[in-house]
Amino acid sequence: MLPYLVTLDAAQLQAEGIEGFAWGYADRVRFHELDALAHVNNNAFLRWFETARVLYMQDYGVSGFSRGPDDPQLVVRRQVADYLSPMFHDESYIVTARTRLVKPSSFVMEYAVHSGGTLRATGEAVMVSLEQDGRTRRPHKPEAVGAMVERDEAKLQE
Amino acid sequence: MLPYLVTLDAAQLQAEGIEGFAWGYADRVRFHELDALAHVNNNAFLRWFETARVLYMQDYGVSGFSRGPDDPQLVVRRQVADYLSPMFHDESYIVTARTRLVKPSSFVMEYAVHSGGTLRATGEAVMVSLEQDGRTRRPHKPEAVGAMVERDEAKLQE
Amino acid sequence: MLPYLVTLDAAQLQAEGIEGFAWGYADRVRFHELDALAHVNNNAFLRWFETARVLYMQDYGVSGFSRGPDDPQLVVRRQVADYLSPMFHDESYIVTARTRLVKPSSFVMEYAVHSGGTLRATGEAVMVSLEQDGRTRRPHKPEAVGAMVERDEAKLQE
Amino acid sequence: MLPYLVTLDAAQLQAEGIEGFAWGYADRVRFHELDALAHVNNNAFLRWFETARVLYMQDYGVSGFSRGPDDPQLVVRRQVADYLSPMFHDESYIVTARTRLVKPSSFVMEYAVHSGGTLRATGEAVMVSLEQDGRTRRPHKPEAVGAMVERDEAKLQE
Repeated sequence: MLPYLVTLDAAQLQAEGIEGFAWGYADRVRFHELDALAHVNNNAFLRWFETARVLYMQDYGVSGFSRGPDDPQLVVRRQVADYLSPMFHDESYIVTARTRLVKPSSFVMEYAVHSGGTLRATGEAVMVSLEQDGRTRRPHKPEAVGAMVERDEAKLQE
Repeated sequence: MLPYLVTLDAAQLQAEGIEGFAWGYADRVRFHELDALAHVNNNAFLRWFETARVLYMQDYGVSGFSRGPDDPQLVVRRQVADYLSPMFHDESYIVTARTRLVKPSSFVMEYAVHSGGTLRATGEAVMVSLEQDGRTRRPHKPEAVGAMVERDEAKLQE
Repeated sequence: MLPYLVTLDAAQLQAEGIEGFAWGYADRVRFHELDALAHVNNNAFLRWFETARVLYMQDYGVSGFSRGPDDPQLVVRRQVADYLSPMFHDESYIVTARTRLVKPSSFVMEYAVHSGGTLRATGEAVMVSLEQDGRTRRPHKPEAVGAMVERDEAKLQE
Repeated sequence: MLPYLVTLDAAQLQAEGIEGFAWGYADRVRFHELDALAHVNNNAFLRWFETARVLYMQDYGVSGFSRGPDDPQLVVRRQVADYLSPMFHDESYIVTARTRLVKPSSFVMEYAVHSGGTLRATGEAVMVSLEQDGRTRRPHKPEAVGAMVERDEAKLQE
């Protein structure tokens, strides 16, 4: 099968003129993401951040999303989006994601949407790591913390 | 036709145990709002805030959404959501909205989701009022500012 | 809590001028259901049919959606929608649903969207009843078949 | 910018083992397309068909979606989907589209979703070509009809 929704690494992002991120994916605006003003709807950006977040967490080893004891359940505690410039049908874009801060059982991610050489939106999410009971806090997997620090230069906070 | 998605006023909200808001609407979680964990998806809350925002702006006279010269075009500049407690299929809830701060061509709204006596999520949006060109700032209609101040006790900032 | 997304029965539907259906719910078009032409998007109608289907199946005793051995898993095998007249923001409407045909482990439902005295869309879904393994056919609960026949005059086919 | 959501032609589809279609695109299941059973929701398939339809119509010259007098307004009159096999998170797939039948101001399209060597779903849409008034029937552009006949072997019906 053709590779799609493929991850872009730091070098590939730099080749696209994007600095400061080590993880991204490229895509194109679809008709169902437009609202009645024919702009990309505000919530579509948050679905892009969600898509990025899930793939990023698989890629960095945060969770295999198994729902079994080997994996945490990850919940969004807070979400922020800043809309800088409208987007339209068929525009190509790159969503980038990185972790800025890692605490024992939570972390803070940052997102950005790049298109045509300009930043269209940025976002942030506070993620909490829980046991499969959906209540008890669960520490991160060491390899995930390692990848966040090494690839993203995430700051550790005890 | 039966009245649906009706607006709740301050007195009706108080009867439901909700203080501090003069505008709300009641609804019930639908199947398509659930994600793979069978929780209401984070982005569904933002669609509820959007539904509240559009109805509130019609109700307070901010815009008739005509796309003609009598109405501003309203864009979201920033959106925040805090997720306090998960929600599930078929739960009834009330979304409330109010304006906290009014500037000459922007305003800040606050949202909350109430269900079963607890607060499930809160949100905030920074709204910008533009001419129909989508670029030039446009002052608010005086009656909208009046309603925000009178009904919501919004703070005015020159 | 205020009753919302409430079921309408045959008498309530007749009072709204709707004949031939014993089950419905009323709602109002939301902003996020519009597409770039400012019409209700085609797929929004199918989400309404889905909302109707899930509530109907709970109401008629087809499934409690428990994911336990007491309940079937219900899957859509085929879906059809006919679009008769466009819909716009804020329009009130009633979605009606009924079962036309019941086979041992499947059934055929019909849907309609009514607004302002006209039929806006109709739909059909072929539903299959499975065990929780998602593969083995499972016969319907007798009370569900009884309700489909009695309330909807569904035709039985061995 | 990296090419994404790129169109696949007959030769590329054949290389993926797909016969009988001259147009497709490849993608991957996203988290927000899953429902509470962790399957791809039925309506997500219809959004894929919509994405295919819009890109196909641009590609075949049916419409430039300008909303000006040079372009028709295209509306869906009827939609059908058959669900053959469930799909899950992260699966790669190809959506294919073709026109089967062309009438003076309407045409019938067929869709299919291919993944891992099996057909997961098929669909059909009856499209109507209107003037920008949204009411008057409008004949197709000759080059669009030519492309449908040549590339898809669509049947013409006066």
